[in-house]
Formats: sequence, structure tokens, C-alpha cells
Amino acid sequence: MREVAVLGIGMSEWGELWKKPLRQIFVDAASAAIADAGVDKIDSMYVGCMTSGLFVGQEHLASMLSDYLGVSSIPACRVESACASAGVAFRLGYVEVASGVSDIVLVGGVEKMTDVGGDGATFALATAADQEYEVYHGVTFPGLYAMVANEHMDRFGTTREQLAHVAVKNHKHGSMNPRAQYPFEVTVEGVLKSVLVADPLRILDCSPITDGAAAAVLCPLGLAKKLSKKPLVKITGSGHATDTIALHDRDDITEFAATKRAAEKAYKMAGVGPADIDFAEVHDCFTIAEICVIEALGFAERGKGGEAAESGATALGGPIPINTSGGLKSKGHPVGATGIAQIVELTEQLRGESGKRQVKGAKRGLAQNMGGTGGSTTVHILEVA
Amino acid sequence: MREVAVLGIGMSEWGELWKKPLRQIFVDAASAAIADAGVDKIDSMYVGCMTSGLFVGQEHLASMLSDYLGVSSIPACRVESACASAGVAFRLGYVEVASGVSDIVLVGGVEKMTDVGGDGATFALATAADQEYEVYHGVTFPGLYAMVANEHMDRFGTTREQLAHVAVKNHKHGSMNPRAQYPFEVTVEGVLKSVLVADPLRILDCSPITDGAAAAVLCPLGLAKKLSKKPLVKITGSGHATDTIALHDRDDITEFAATKRAAEKAYKMAGVGPADIDFAEVHDCFTIAEICVIEALGFAERGKGGEAAESGATALGGPIPINTSGGLKSKGHPVGATGIAQIVELTEQLRGESGKRQVKGAKRGLAQNMGGTGGSTTVHILEVA
Repeated sequence: MREVAVLGIGMSEWGELWKKPLRQIFVDAASAAIADAGVDKIDSMYVGCMTSGLFVGQEHLASMLSDYLGVSSIPACRVESACASAGVAFRLGYVEVASGVSDIVLVGGVEKMTDVGGDGATFALATAADQEYEVYHGVTFPGLYAMVANEHMDRFGTTREQLAHVAVKNHKHGSMNPRAQYPFEVTVEGVLKSVLVADPLRILDCSPITDGAAAAVLCPLGLAKKLSKKPLVKITGSGHATDTIALHDRDDITEFAATKRAAEKAYKMAGVGPADIDFAEVHDCFTIAEICVIEALGFAERGKGGEAAESGATALGGPIPINTSGGLKSKGHPVGATGIAQIVELTEQLRGESGKRQVKGAKRGLAQNMGGTGGSTTVHILEVA
Repeated sequence: MREVAVLGIGMSEWGELWKKPLRQIFVDAASAAIADAGVDKIDSMYVGCMTSGLFVGQEHLASMLSDYLGVSSIPACRVESACASAGVAFRLGYVEVASGVSDIVLVGGVEKMTDVGGDGATFALATAADQEYEVYHGVTFPGLYAMVANEHMDRFGTTREQLAHVAVKNHKHGSMNPRAQYPFEVTVEGVLKSVLVADPLRILDCSPITDGAAAAVLCPLGLAKKLSKKPLVKITGSGHATDTIALHDRDDITEFAATKRAAEKAYKMAGVGPADIDFAEVHDCFTIAEICVIEALGFAERGKGGEAAESGATALGGPIPINTSGGLKSKGHPVGATGIAQIVELTEQLRGESGKRQVKGAKRGLAQNMGGTGGSTTVHILEVA
């Protein structure tokens, strides 16, 4: 298997993009990545998208997008694993380049969520849970993650304030990210007073509904050395795992087993452990998710994820900065695009291009992207080449 | 890259499966494939499905299906490329085994189409066309393929009767397939008198709405030699290509360019040409589709695809039997499953297990699976090992 580099990265505008169709949002991100890579052709394409069928009534997505990107004819397919769709697309692109099947592969993710309105979005997102055994009984994602939060608070003494600290930190990071959908800061008090969604989770514990896309161009490291004048970033670890789709089938709903398994594979492949990671982007779809995920990744002890946020350990300047981009919480969460947007943040940090939110001396970053309540997860490790 | 074998195959019942949920249909096929392979574990899974979101309100499909198959934890993802979804899943599984990333990979496809009723199915299927520039103006798939048929008749003198001969042949083949959804024979007169759908296409020119799944287990050829007592089948060619999603953007709507490109790649990889293929399964979603596809694959001269059906050249016993399974037309067309069901037919033929519809001395078969009006296509060549 060949070593693989991230040669180019790009993002569309993120937010409520009323005037742009899905195809344009994707082409904006893909064109930016191709321009950043400085290539004039791509051999193959993978697109992560959770549910363009329910959100905009369009399937056969990769053919449409390769067409509108002007590369119609290349192998192109869409990959779906709920909110981990783009993480899986990134992994498949990595395997395609590493194995020698293709040299230059575009990996992207896109979701246009706002066209359907609030109820439509809630229904569409709930298709990432078990329709027949969870959603049918009336629970949607805020409710599922609220159960996780209650259990974590019960067992480990995690406080309501600690949940808020995750939001405060990520909005603080997002305030330094020109691409963030909600680049404002919030306070612990503000989070605690925000409207209740599913006890104990309030609206400022939840990531938003977002239209947006992200893309990256991958190629063999050897080729990247010839093509690129920028600091090179290589992929050193890749892990992918699943778990039961329904929360009630887990032995322990506070332990994200797919994240643990995917991380073990990625760490082993890269030959490193949690202590060797300089910073990470993780899937903070709700504040409690970040807490459980950093425990599963080994960045905090079991039950201590809330303390990590409260103490500043996971803030910029702390020992393990988490979600320097603002995370899903502040940057936004177009569900099928998030996994590649994490890669964009990692790559910029490793190139030293992150401006005010730059992690000093960042040499190795980790991205964790998950679907549903953790029914699928990818973990990738990127390093300065 | 390692040589890859098809170690096991399986299908669920196909038809209107009112009493079985999607998850059970898939598990039926996957369990059959795993039993046929004789393995006790799988390392990874790819599932083709076009639009479970619109058909049954469920996304995050591969996590749910790996869970219900009892292998929750393995890497599993869904692949979507409209009606070519399973063909792409097969290709990705092939690459994963060939590259050495995994040893035993389950590839499957599933669709449960009947739950939404007729209008719902028409809408869901139309999401494989360009929603904003085709479907919005009122055209759905029978209309799009009717345009292709009219153009083919105009330019090449293809007759209405020749279209009917494709249906007659495929139903004749399907009458010998115990798994066919519509295993009855039809006559040219019967096709011509059947209800008009989109001139010149009549209901008996159209493939049906079907619930069903198909699966295959792939592994390195070397491992297959140790594990299997059945005649071994190996994958010698794999091609994947796209085309414009909208018919109006093509230079020539009767020439399926993605099929030509995918076939060129697969032929080149296998070191063979059309004359070396003993039989093929192709994407006859409408009778005209089979005619255009066999021309693109090189089994008939340009414009002579209709004559091939009329003359019996593409029937069992002819020089190049096409759709010995009954094809989409008679066997059924659960859109996300079709690409792997074609692989099931190829494998059974190459093992000599096809009973009444056995192609004598079959050593090399080809499967062509496409999405939409040909916006995406995969071509695979399988041979006796």
C-alpha cells in the first residue's frame, strides 16, 4: 500500500443557503479543493451524503455531481453512513489511492438540509436511528442523546455546567473561524437559560441545521511531493467500525464502542496512542457526544470528559485542543459533509494556516466522525509529512 | 493486487414481500451467501441501496443491516448510485479484497419498494434522474426511455416488434428461473396489446417494482481454493464509469457512453473482447435499454440490437445468451439489489448450477448494471478459475 497525502482542501459557504442548489454547494467546495491541489484532472470521486432523497428529492448523487463538476465519465459514487458519510467517503478514497487503483481521488461531502423546514429535517435526521424500534416510539436524536447525558450524569457525576462548557469552548473556537455558521461566543449561563429541547439538553447543547459541503483531493505522497509547494500532510491512520444502530441494544450507552474500535485501528496503523495526538476534531453533534467521544478516544479518563471541558484541557492552549474549528456546534453540521470538513481543519492546522486558532507546533491531528448515536464511526490520523 | 474469487452467493425471495421488513429481506440473502461460502466470519461489508430513505424511511442502512446480520462492529457502509448501487458495492468489495485491506468481504444489495405504493415508487425512482432539469418538467423513467426508443427506431429502423422480442426472450428465460418474480412467458402479440405507458413503451416493456435482496461473499482466490469445494469463480474485469445524469445533455441518447467506457476498462483488465464472452446479464429496465446496452458492450453492431433479439442471437442456445436469469424484466428489479443478483446468476452459470437455463460450457460471463438512463454503469467479468 502506498502512502497517501491530502493534496488539496476546500469548503463551500456554510449556513442557510437559500439561493444555492445542492449541486452548486458541492461544486463550490470541490472546485476549491481542486484549485488548492493544483491538479487539472481527477481519476475518481466519492461523495458522502446522508439523505439527499429526503432533503432535496435527488438520488444518483455522485453522477449528478461529477456531471456538474465537469468531470462526467469518471468513476463516482455516493457513500452513506448517516452523519459519518463523509468520513467513510474519505476512507474509501484513501484505500483507492493507497492500493494503486487511482492516483488522484476527490473525496467530498454535502448536505442541503434547510429546504425541508424543521419537521422535515427532524424526520430526515431520525432515519439515522432505528425507525422501527426507536423512532416509531417517538424518540428523535435530541431524546436519544439526552438519555446518554442523563446516564453519564448519574454514573459519573457529570454536571449540567460541564455540558455547557463544551458549547462555550466550541463557540469560542468557532468565533475565530471565518467559516463558522454561528461564530458568536456563548456563556455557561446563556447555555443553561436557552430553551429546553430534551432534558437535560438545551438548544445551545445541539448542533445546528446547515447547508454546506467540503472536499479534499488525495494522491500518493510521492506524487504530492512533486505537485505541491505547500507543507505536505499525510494520512497515517484509518479506522472504521460499526455498533448496534439502536441505543437500547448497547451494553453501556455512555461508552461509544465503535469509536473505541475505530480508534484502536487508527492508532495501531499510525503506531501512536492518544498522548501522541496534538489536537482533534470530534463529532460534537450534542455537547454530551463530545464528552463521551473524547473518553472513547483516550483523551480523557472514563467519566472525566466533562471535567476536561470545564478545566480547559480541551480548549486551545490546553494539552489536547478539541474542535478548534468550532466543531459541529459552532461551525455547523451539514450531516453528510462534516467528516471531510474535519479533514479540512486538520490539514489547515498541520499546514499552519489556521490564523488565530492555530495550534502551535501541530504535527499530528485526529478526526472522529460518527453516524447516529455512534452506530458507525471513522477515525483518521493525519500528520505533517 | 490479489486475484479475487466469488466464494458464496445468496438471494432472498423476490416479489411483493408485504410481511417482511427490509432488514429481514437483506439478512435472508446475506445469510444464504455466508452459508454458501461456508465462512464463519466476515471482515467488512458494502450494501448497495438506492433510496431506503424514500422507500422505507430508513438511512444509516449498513449499520442497521450489519447489526441485524449479527456482525455489528465490522466496517460497513452503504453505496448509492441509483439502480447501479449494487454494482458499485460489488466493485468496492472487489477493490477491498484485491488490495489486501480485508480478506472476507460481504457485498449485498437490497430494496423494499412496495411499501410506498405506485405514486411513491414513481417519485422515488425519478430521483435517479435530474430532479431540477428533467423530473420537474414532468418526465419520469418510462418517458425518458421512450425518447431513447423513439430515437433508436427513427435512426436505425428498430421495430416495435423487436422491442417486444426482448421481453418475450427474457420472460422465456425467467420461466426457467425459480426465483423470478414473474416467471410466466409472454408473446409478441401480448406485449403489443399490453397497456401503453409512454409511447412506444407498454407495460410489458417495463421491469416491475420488486422487494428483494442479493449478496455475495468475496475473498482472495488463494483462500477460496482452501475453503471451497465448489467450482471456483474469479473476477477478472471491473469497470465503472459515469455519464451526464440528464438525457438532454448527451450527444447521442441511443449510445450509452458510460457502458462503453466501463466495458472498455473491464475488457482491457480481463484481456478479452466481446467475442470472448459466453453469456451476459445486462440492465434491461426497459426493453429498449437491453438493445442499447448490448450494442455498447459490443455484442451487437450499432443499431442492430433489436435484430439480435428478434433473430434469437441473444436467447439461450444462441451465440450470446443475454439475461438467462430472466433479467430485470421477468426476474424482478429491486433497484439497489439488481447488480449483485446479476453476479449470482453469473456465478451459478459458471458453476454449472443453472438447471434448465444452463448455458452449456459457460466459462466467462459479463454483468452490466446501470443507474438512471445510464448516468452510472459498472461492468464486471467473471470466469471459471
